[in-house]
Amino acid sequence: MSLRLILVGFGNVGRGFLRVLNEKRETLERKHDLEISLVAVIRRRGVLVDENGLRISELLERESELRWIDENPLDVIREIDADVLVECSPTNVETGEPGLSYIYTALESGKHVITSNKGPLAVDFWGLKKAAARRGLELRFEATVGGAIPIFSTLRSSLRGDEIISIRGILNGTTNYILSRMCKEGLSLELVLREAQELGIAESDPTYDIEAIDPAAKLVILANEILGMDARFQDVKRIGISRITAEAARMAMKHGYKIKLIAIAEEERLEVSPRLIPQGHPMDVDGTLNVISLKTDLAREITLVGPGAGPRETASALINDLIDVSLAVRS
Amino acid sequence: MSLRLILVGFGNVGRGFLRVLNEKRETLERKHDLEISLVAVIRRRGVLVDENGLRISELLERESELRWIDENPLDVIREIDADVLVECSPTNVETGEPGLSYIYTALESGKHVITSNKGPLAVDFWGLKKAAARRGLELRFEATVGGAIPIFSTLRSSLRGDEIISIRGILNGTTNYILSRMCKEGLSLELVLREAQELGIAESDPTYDIEAIDPAAKLVILANEILGMDARFQDVKRIGISRITAEAARMAMKHGYKIKLIAIAEEERLEVSPRLIPQGHPMDVDGTLNVISLKTDLAREITLVGPGAGPRETASALINDLIDVSLAVRS
Repeated sequence: MSLRLILVGFGNVGRGFLRVLNEKRETLERKHDLEISLVAVIRRRGVLVDENGLRISELLERESELRWIDENPLDVIREIDADVLVECSPTNVETGEPGLSYIYTALESGKHVITSNKGPLAVDFWGLKKAAARRGLELRFEATVGGAIPIFSTLRSSLRGDEIISIRGILNGTTNYILSRMCKEGLSLELVLREAQELGIAESDPTYDIEAIDPAAKLVILANEILGMDARFQDVKRIGISRITAEAARMAMKHGYKIKLIAIAEEERLEVSPRLIPQGHPMDVDGTLNVISLKTDLAREITLVGPGAGPRETASALINDLIDVSLAVRS
Repeated sequence: MSLRLILVGFGNVGRGFLRVLNEKRETLERKHDLEISLVAVIRRRGVLVDENGLRISELLERESELRWIDENPLDVIREIDADVLVECSPTNVETGEPGLSYIYTALESGKHVITSNKGPLAVDFWGLKKAAARRGLELRFEATVGGAIPIFSTLRSSLRGDEIISIRGILNGTTNYILSRMCKEGLSLELVLREAQELGIAESDPTYDIEAIDPAAKLVILANEILGMDARFQDVKRIGISRITAEAARMAMKHGYKIKLIAIAEEERLEVSPRLIPQGHPMDVDGTLNVISLKTDLAREITLVGPGAGPRETASALINDLIDVSLAVRS
């Protein structure tokens, strides 16, 4: 079968997705009987459309030489003949825009949606889910939480006799990197943050990470999808890591613990805050890794660990979602 | 829909499965439209049959009062009208028996099979897979590796665009418990083993664990199913933990490592042996927990952690397999 794609967002994630799509073209056809045709790309400044399919390698290598035209993205999403919108635009957890409008427009014009953007889901999770369900369309968002960790796809085929009681996780790689180094090397937050910024692990404005905004948005998506909650970003109690001192990290280490920024979703509680984790515990994972741990009535506790970000890692999730959509379209 | 089950093996795993099946009866019906009827139980001494369905609570509470009859298990498996054999008999990694004959007999008489017994699969993986495929029957074995860790079911719906390059794991809870305590407390193998035996974590004959026989059998199943290898138990290079000293454990800890019994499957290598794992690494997990880590081309490394044994934990895997079988039967 073949699927026609529109990509919105041509940053690291969007480009990474196209690169992997190109690389996996043969595998997708052979293993999944899936042929992909990219019919439009929407970036901040301009749109590229070819109803016969854009050449991905050309797009990646000679972006600036191509004829990007000035059109309204919403019109393109609405009017182009396509099956799936792949939505990789930048995150805004307060308004969900511009992703929110992109996704609604795609669903309203009968297109399935795959997104890596947590903003729209943190703002209007059930509105989006219902809009998709009403039209029998797929809305997949594996890439929004935990990077390459396949949490949502895992739960579609695993632990189906279990009752999931609660979720705990390390959902932000930047703060995990910072806390790991503070604990291991006894360094101050300021110093490690500066180095992380130089390495490109932290952004120049680190507020989303340090103030736990990013993991709180991800927690909302986990809680709604897995525990069936009706949570929004504002419902999450947030305590960031800005007050963690080198001394606190050193004391934790000395007593067999580490300080981690832990997100928790359970009955009556939605919270992201720094906590002590015993060394050797499944959530004691260093560097930029993310962790998602499910407490259940039978399996007790199942923990998934993986890279929390990165263009290829995010593409792993997007491609798996794409295969899911193709299976849903077939059935 | 309804499924008729035969259970073979009435030890901890078999009983735990029945207990959970009873407890989840209402959930299975409501959430999965699945009604289960247990038509026969085969234990070492005797068989209990009721084509109208045995009462599970009676079976669990008044086992000795029931009329177990002396029949050939293979005849029962062959002749009773049932849809699924749930095979929980004891493991023998050299012959695969008695499980191997039970499973072949079930498949030959048109019954799907769910097993928690690694013996048959370690001995004759592809023979069994082909026998099932030839007849369009399901053969599920989530419970054979990593206890409640849903590794096989996860890979059926996740990481499908990724190429799995290699597998590493801690596949034996007993030795992980022993090594964890040796590292943390600086104790000798003999001492910790004796305590583990008193706690029921290690068996009175600990050879299967200490000599890495149990994890080697599990590695064969992982390598065949996930990497498509054609491996048998004899192909695994095995080094147990009997030579690990308290001094070695102490030295590892001092330099920021732990000693773990690691199973590895990759091109040209199948091995279980003690290795140094950096503290804070996803495989640095203490106690009786198991770990399975997949290296892939896109997601880099995805690690799953969970309880490696226990009757309820194993039932989590068996019940999920049962739901899988019911879905396959329907489609």
